[in-house]
Amino acid sequence: MNYGYFSEDNREYIITRPDTPTPWINYLNNGKYCAMVSNTGGGYSFYIDPKENRILRYRYNNIPVDRPGRYLYLRDRETSEYWSPTWQPTMKKLDDYKCAHGLGYTKISSSYQGINSEVLYFVPPNDDLELWILTVKNETSKLKNLDLFSYAEFCIWDADSDQKDLQYNLNIAVSKYDEEINSMVYNLFSLLNGLFFFYSSNNIETYDGDRESFIGNYRSEENPIGVEKGACSNSIALGGNPIAATSSKITLKPNETKKVIFLLGLSQNKTKIKEFISKYDNIDKIESSFKELKNNWNNYLKGFEANTPDKNFNLIVNIWNPYQCKTTFDWSRYVSFYETGIGRGIGFRDFNQDTLGVCDRLPKKVRQKLLITAGIQFESGKVYHLYYPITKKGDFPNYTNQQQVFFGDDHLWMIFALSNYIKETGDYSILKENVPYVEGTIENMYDHLKRAIEFTKNHTGPHGFPLIGTADWNDTLQLRGPHKQGESIMVAMQYHKALLDLYDIAQQSGINDDCLEFKKLADEMKDLLNKKAWDGEWYIRAFDDDGTVIGSHKNKEGRIFLNTQSWAVFSGIAPKERALKCMNSVRKYLVTDYGIKLLNPPYSRFYPKFGGISSFTPGLKENGSIFSHTNPWAEIAECIIGRGNYAYEYYEKIAPTTKNNIADIHRAEPYVFAQMITGNDHPKFGNARNSWLTGTAAWTLKAATDWILGIRPEFKGLLIDPCIPESWNGFNVIRNYRNSIYKIIVQNPDHISKGIQEIIVDNKNINGNLIPIFNDNKSHEIVVKMGE
Amino acid sequence: MNYGYFSEDNREYIITRPDTPTPWINYLNNGKYCAMVSNTGGGYSFYIDPKENRILRYRYNNIPVDRPGRYLYLRDRETSEYWSPTWQPTMKKLDDYKCAHGLGYTKISSSYQGINSEVLYFVPPNDDLELWILTVKNETSKLKNLDLFSYAEFCIWDADSDQKDLQYNLNIAVSKYDEEINSMVYNLFSLLNGLFFFYSSNNIETYDGDRESFIGNYRSEENPIGVEKGACSNSIALGGNPIAATSSKITLKPNETKKVIFLLGLSQNKTKIKEFISKYDNIDKIESSFKELKNNWNNYLKGFEANTPDKNFNLIVNIWNPYQCKTTFDWSRYVSFYETGIGRGIGFRDFNQDTLGVCDRLPKKVRQKLLITAGIQFESGKVYHLYYPITKKGDFPNYTNQQQVFFGDDHLWMIFALSNYIKETGDYSILKENVPYVEGTIENMYDHLKRAIEFTKNHTGPHGFPLIGTADWNDTLQLRGPHKQGESIMVAMQYHKALLDLYDIAQQSGINDDCLEFKKLADEMKDLLNKKAWDGEWYIRAFDDDGTVIGSHKNKEGRIFLNTQSWAVFSGIAPKERALKCMNSVRKYLVTDYGIKLLNPPYSRFYPKFGGISSFTPGLKENGSIFSHTNPWAEIAECIIGRGNYAYEYYEKIAPTTKNNIADIHRAEPYVFAQMITGNDHPKFGNARNSWLTGTAAWTLKAATDWILGIRPEFKGLLIDPCIPESWNGFNVIRNYRNSIYKIIVQNPDHISKGIQEIIVDNKNINGNLIPIFNDNKSHEIVVKMGE
Repeated sequence: MNYGYFSEDNREYIITRPDTPTPWINYLNNGKYCAMVSNTGGGYSFYIDPKENRILRYRYNNIPVDRPGRYLYLRDRETSEYWSPTWQPTMKKLDDYKCAHGLGYTKISSSYQGINSEVLYFVPPNDDLELWILTVKNETSKLKNLDLFSYAEFCIWDADSDQKDLQYNLNIAVSKYDEEINSMVYNLFSLLNGLFFFYSSNNIETYDGDRESFIGNYRSEENPIGVEKGACSNSIALGGNPIAATSSKITLKPNETKKVIFLLGLSQNKTKIKEFISKYDNIDKIESSFKELKNNWNNYLKGFEANTPDKNFNLIVNIWNPYQCKTTFDWSRYVSFYETGIGRGIGFRDFNQDTLGVCDRLPKKVRQKLLITAGIQFESGKVYHLYYPITKKGDFPNYTNQQQVFFGDDHLWMIFALSNYIKETGDYSILKENVPYVEGTIENMYDHLKRAIEFTKNHTGPHGFPLIGTADWNDTLQLRGPHKQGESIMVAMQYHKALLDLYDIAQQSGINDDCLEFKKLADEMKDLLNKKAWDGEWYIRAFDDDGTVIGSHKNKEGRIFLNTQSWAVFSGIAPKERALKCMNSVRKYLVTDYGIKLLNPPYSRFYPKFGGISSFTPGLKENGSIFSHTNPWAEIAECIIGRGNYAYEYYEKIAPTTKNNIADIHRAEPYVFAQMITGNDHPKFGNARNSWLTGTAAWTLKAATDWILGIRPEFKGLLIDPCIPESWNGFNVIRNYRNSIYKIIVQNPDHISKGIQEIIVDNKNINGNLIPIFNDNKSHEIVVKMGE
Repeated sequence: MNYGYFSEDNREYIITRPDTPTPWINYLNNGKYCAMVSNTGGGYSFYIDPKENRILRYRYNNIPVDRPGRYLYLRDRETSEYWSPTWQPTMKKLDDYKCAHGLGYTKISSSYQGINSEVLYFVPPNDDLELWILTVKNETSKLKNLDLFSYAEFCIWDADSDQKDLQYNLNIAVSKYDEEINSMVYNLFSLLNGLFFFYSSNNIETYDGDRESFIGNYRSEENPIGVEKGACSNSIALGGNPIAATSSKITLKPNETKKVIFLLGLSQNKTKIKEFISKYDNIDKIESSFKELKNNWNNYLKGFEANTPDKNFNLIVNIWNPYQCKTTFDWSRYVSFYETGIGRGIGFRDFNQDTLGVCDRLPKKVRQKLLITAGIQFESGKVYHLYYPITKKGDFPNYTNQQQVFFGDDHLWMIFALSNYIKETGDYSILKENVPYVEGTIENMYDHLKRAIEFTKNHTGPHGFPLIGTADWNDTLQLRGPHKQGESIMVAMQYHKALLDLYDIAQQSGINDDCLEFKKLADEMKDLLNKKAWDGEWYIRAFDDDGTVIGSHKNKEGRIFLNTQSWAVFSGIAPKERALKCMNSVRKYLVTDYGIKLLNPPYSRFYPKFGGISSFTPGLKENGSIFSHTNPWAEIAECIIGRGNYAYEYYEKIAPTTKNNIADIHRAEPYVFAQMITGNDHPKFGNARNSWLTGTAAWTLKAATDWILGIRPEFKGLLIDPCIPESWNGFNVIRNYRNSIYKIIVQNPDHISKGIQEIIVDNKNINGNLIPIFNDNKSHEIVVKMGE
């Protein structure tokens, strides 16, 4: 069953019924003011930090789901009947319903007894506020007298405290009507320089600042007493739960259309509010702001455009995956309908991976953030696991208390992110930027990277592999033995790759002294891995604190783990034969209809010595779900060993577009990746959970563009190395790279997966498959002929 | 308007309509397993600690209010109509409704289309579980085929994490049906030795372990799809939101009555569950357990029984106030419908005051807890502000970070609690008990008390008064100047009283060496206060960090504060004339129709240098509300100066019984005190907020029994010193004291407030008004004749 489809130009996803299996949401976001909105108007907003500066309140995990939101009610004054043009919260059956999630905006259209309405929500690119624009049209043959109600429920600023310190919070907020600006104005009594406003372009006839006055006792957003009566009670919130509810009148002749603009935002003072109002209380000005928003996104997307035989692939790679990558870059794993933005900071590991998804389009922002986050590294080379974007300070999560306080992998991700950044931009100057350590001493970025290597080098266990510390990439593989000697094979493989990457960086930037050492360490680790981590059909995953192997045929549960197979190939440690063998084992033991499982078999009960991984019920999360993040690594591995059909099959298995017609099984949005898809050991096999904020976004984009299409930035040029399904005749890509436009035409007349016969650049044959750097602000045509 | 009344024997409050202004709740509680239940079945439960071990989930501050709860649904199989016998959550209009909140139990009766039902909820005294017993009767003339559904929603154990770490918590719970024990069984996958069970004495026909399966998407407890369809879907929760929903069948002939027993609890294993079931699956056994519960409460209440001309006074003093005191002693300010039990530990100051309300009835428990909490004292004499009951560790709240890390008053409350304990019990041995300091060194309790005095002595400011530190009793009076030199006049007065109390303790226990020093320090502080803290008509409240006076006629806002007037009298520092003058100022400036305000005028805006107190909107909380806790101190002060009419007037103003007929204004329960009543500077003047957990409980009981009735334990006997309304002819009290029963008959033939002409003990005249200690397990008759 499906609940919608992609629009013709693929830049909108159109939802055709409101009762989607989960709220299907969108981010309206200028990087500071961020609003999430569902397909029925639910959702919340915040400014810069979702814990400290929460604007609209949200009740996570509520029943009914998805409350509250940016709600409007229309009420027919003749019949007293009322409905919500976005379906929620009245949930009254609409004659027609459509929600278009576009890039940075959401438009919900509906019709009820001849009244058509459309609500457009967006956050303008340059101002910290949100716009709700209602267009309402009378399609009946009678004059219609309508009441229009609006509802916004405020969070009392600190979103954590808002959920638990009621005896304090319910006494500190003020929300009232300000006639001069025809707005509800909300602030905390103690917030000297802050003012929230909710403006309506229609004359506000009645209002409520106090939730209880508007909603009524033992009622909800579904049936507010104010709407039922046809008028708010003009209440002021002095303490209590502050809201901005307003009512106004709309009279529509047959066929008449009217528009009402609502502005919700925050400001230092009333003068600034007036500026906002004069700026946005004008449909023309709003339209030009909306156009700017669309242009920004069009420009953003222009950096990479693929045209392949698979339309679904095109729309993910060209539009929705880059769109999701921008969101993960902005908000990491911080704030969604499932991540509450109040429990933790931003992951260092997460952030570094998120840069991969936007580095080509936002190199300056990536550079800036890479330098900031490097500041949470210690002199020893390890890093804090988390950082807080407002304070720029680092932290470890609570559950590290009893553990060795480092994560085996965290610091290594810096090297991958830096290597990717330099390959994309050629900007070696970043290596010379001075950045402090936590202790206060300062060194340049290159030294920071070297210290990351040194930390792993200096922290190895009895078998010579890197200590896992609190955990590695798999946060829940917590080897809780008393000796703190758990070793991670995955980290060992990442270390090998990091050494090679840093070797390349050093060589390319002329710092040759260190190269030999990096190469030597890499070779040693490669040997060790092939000596001690090969299990016969696959690579093992770890050694427990007591030296017991994890991820081996010797184990009954957790016999084979995905990551040490894909990384064995990706990191370059697996000899060809083993690479094939371990990826064949993946195919044999881990591949399911909906993607590749993280491990098999899942743990059937909790094992204290493994910790979190066995705290999940089998088939969920790290205990054997299809943990989406890890699937692109397997796709990359398949590309490396040349099996384009498999790579593409794996790609499609988790691709959201392929879920459009099984939305009742998949449940999450069919336009973005989710963190996890329930594994086949769980009765709800195929359910996606925790959509939007996941490392899957960046890595799947990389797998698609750099490995399947094979258009891959390298230090000295753009490498062309496709590994595609044999069925494809070829494909075209237009890509921005180092200030030139590369128009690449790939032909596949022999229907192979991999291999290049010749490449013609600007009508000239070149040797090899590395396209040079032009840096000339011009277009260049590259024709690639695949062949044995 | 009223929503109910007290039953004839006053041991139940009967609510007659379900839509009370706020949920009116009850605590079902054996000191370990605690369940809160509202008059419509809403509420939650926990085991020992409300953060760490939460059993049933609650959505604080939700709309609709008061969800979820212990819900039942009855469904007529002929018509498919369904309703809730406790009104919530279906909120279907009932033909009849009645909720009786009794001591430790709640019984909700209702009737719908001829089906009568009664639901009795209680926690048995000796087992950690809760019982729901449904009695259903067919009063129609037809056979009735009914479906019975039950619903309990589990919290995922850690109540803080449950609200914010959804991406983890929604993957770790298991809830399923266990046929062998006809129960739903819930646990965390990682909880090796824990098992929650929900048993039904009716054969479970269908069930749901998974919330979404039972409720359905975009639905709520109000209209679960399971109930609508007439059958659950037999879902297992493996991750997701775990619930225990069951359905069973009930067939009732005309006039037939049936009973169904539900048990909800936790256990180490299935064997234990079977024991519980065999113990409680039997109406006779349940009745005997219920009888035991009632007996326990009757015995508890027997310790003090007053019979005065005012029936309302009697029912508060004899029943509901001691009942509330037991609750505050058990749960302090930790967990209610407004206190979430997840944001903070138990206040040291709070706990010590809470002992005053139960010391006569629970001396052993008080002794034990006093010794434990003394362990969070530092060698310097100060104490942690908070302690955690499971770990017994202390803590300071977050907001002390920027302050001097002590509260000016905290440590002094130990002395009041100890003095009260010894006066009640004569147990001087507690002074010799060894107790550690935070640093690990050990001294006896007497030394702990001395160090408390020393801390204040060693931390005084420029005027010689005790430094306020982070704050004093008024947590929100945060004098945030840079020099940390804010001084508290209230602490100075408390210090004076603490010195006198410790002087008495030392003298009575024969530690005479210290006495002179205590007396000297007390006299000095008394002089200083009268020299520097008298403002002309009242005592000032504090000096700010920069030496500015707070609570003076010189201030425009915060001119007069209540506490330094009542404590000036209570602590004995005010000479008679000033005592009268300052209490007259209280009457003139602070007394309102609904109680005495904390200060006047409230702060009209936020002043960063005063902190929290001015973060509340005027009339709320510490910014000028009727902060109930402080009213009994004023009552005591009026008793001390002999104005019984005023004392009693103030008593009545906040007494919940006086709110019964203005429940729409008062809003909170008319059978317990609330923390605060909105002041007359607020448009919602008279609204009570944050009911149940407040220091008001203990202090009002003390004001009533020890000061108005004037039956006051002293070191060497029971003092008789009434200060009553002149209108009273007299009153009788039966009081347990030091292993004897004192039957006290007070006669007031001259209709005076205060003064005793003669006292006859066991038919013999005695000198003075101190009744001796008999310690003979016998009754003694004391006839008191009041007179000039």
